[in-house]
Amino acid sequence: MRQLRQFIVLGHTVPIEPDFTLNDLPGSAGRLDVLCRCVNAAFFLSHDLRHDVQLYLVIQDELVVRFDGSTVQYLNPDERSTAALIQKALEKAQVHPLEEERESTPGIHVSRREFSDILQTVDGTVLQLHEDGDPLETVAPVDDPVFVLSDHEDFSADEQALLDEYTDARVRIGPRTVHADHAITIVHNRLDRL
Amino acid sequence: MRQLRQFIVLGHTVPIEPDFTLNDLPGSAGRLDVLCRCVNAAFFLSHDLRHDVQLYLVIQDELVVRFDGSTVQYLNPDERSTAALIQKALEKAQVHPLEEERESTPGIHVSRREFSDILQTVDGTVLQLHEDGDPLETVAPVDDPVFVLSDHEDFSADEQALLDEYTDARVRIGPRTVHADHAITIVHNRLDRL
Repeated sequence: MRQLRQFIVLGHTVPIEPDFTLNDLPGSAGRLDVLCRCVNAAFFLSHDLRHDVQLYLVIQDELVVRFDGSTVQYLNPDERSTAALIQKALEKAQVHPLEEERESTPGIHVSRREFSDILQTVDGTVLQLHEDGDPLETVAPVDDPVFVLSDHEDFSADEQALLDEYTDARVRIGPRTVHADHAITIVHNRLDRL
Repeated sequence: MRQLRQFIVLGHTVPIEPDFTLNDLPGSAGRLDVLCRCVNAAFFLSHDLRHDVQLYLVIQDELVVRFDGSTVQYLNPDERSTAALIQKALEKAQVHPLEEERESTPGIHVSRREFSDILQTVDGTVLQLHEDGDPLETVAPVDDPVFVLSDHEDFSADEQALLDEYTDARVRIGPRTVHADHAITIVHNRLDRL
């Protein structure tokens, strides 16, 4: 089955201002390392990229950095080089009003939007990862699934309410609670096997 | 089922000499970023560590850095801080003959050993990840499974021969070939569900 796989990851502490050092992603860059690992998990195969993936990084509910797997370039698996690409997107956002999306580097786009904007416009079936959900395999043969994840912090009450409003189904991927990037890796593997 | 899960990861290009910069893990540190992501995948749960894991990083078939999940400390999920711990282990190896393992930081041990030494001494069932293997679930209820993975390079002919000699069973985790750290994440998820 050919699907577009879509991931929305909420980053609560990454700064909007791009003047952080790449030498301290967990500190001054506000756990940007977490988002970089989500990018890695979303796109990398061994010696290949997953081209049928869209990833939205929602930063402080104010900026959205979208990675388009069909056009993205200059992507490497390590955290630091991915952080540099995100930093470039944040720099682009400093000099443009961004009512429309702008491309910061090939396949990476930035806009001034909120989580709710993405949920309203994303085209697909929103599957919420939840420990009480049905097994992913029983639900996943849907059109263009959308998975929403949070960084190192839990969803806020407002975010959870939005997510509940837009969720089409709750799905479960395993008995242990894992990091967002590990969840993306597991989702890919489980969908690959369908 | 309570198992010790064991992972051996072969690093072909990480330098034995620890005088590399943490600012260039993919370059001067010889793709140390790959090994750091394997450490992350092996140990991290959301807000917890997997204590029932042993991870062996075999560096240029000359040094072995062993992470013991039951005692490891100071481990953070980002690549750079994990690289600093591995660098400390390599520094320890500079000043000791290392016929015996030495602890460089809590739960991290270094010794002058080869891949074959680890295969000979590791106590468990060696499961080779292979596209022609049986599904992991059908094989995995074994004592203390041992998974052997390679970094960004394929196994050399000598390594493959050793692996074949010690392999108890071949197992398959999915139709797509994935990075070593993603394979570790998938293995954990599939074993968690048994």
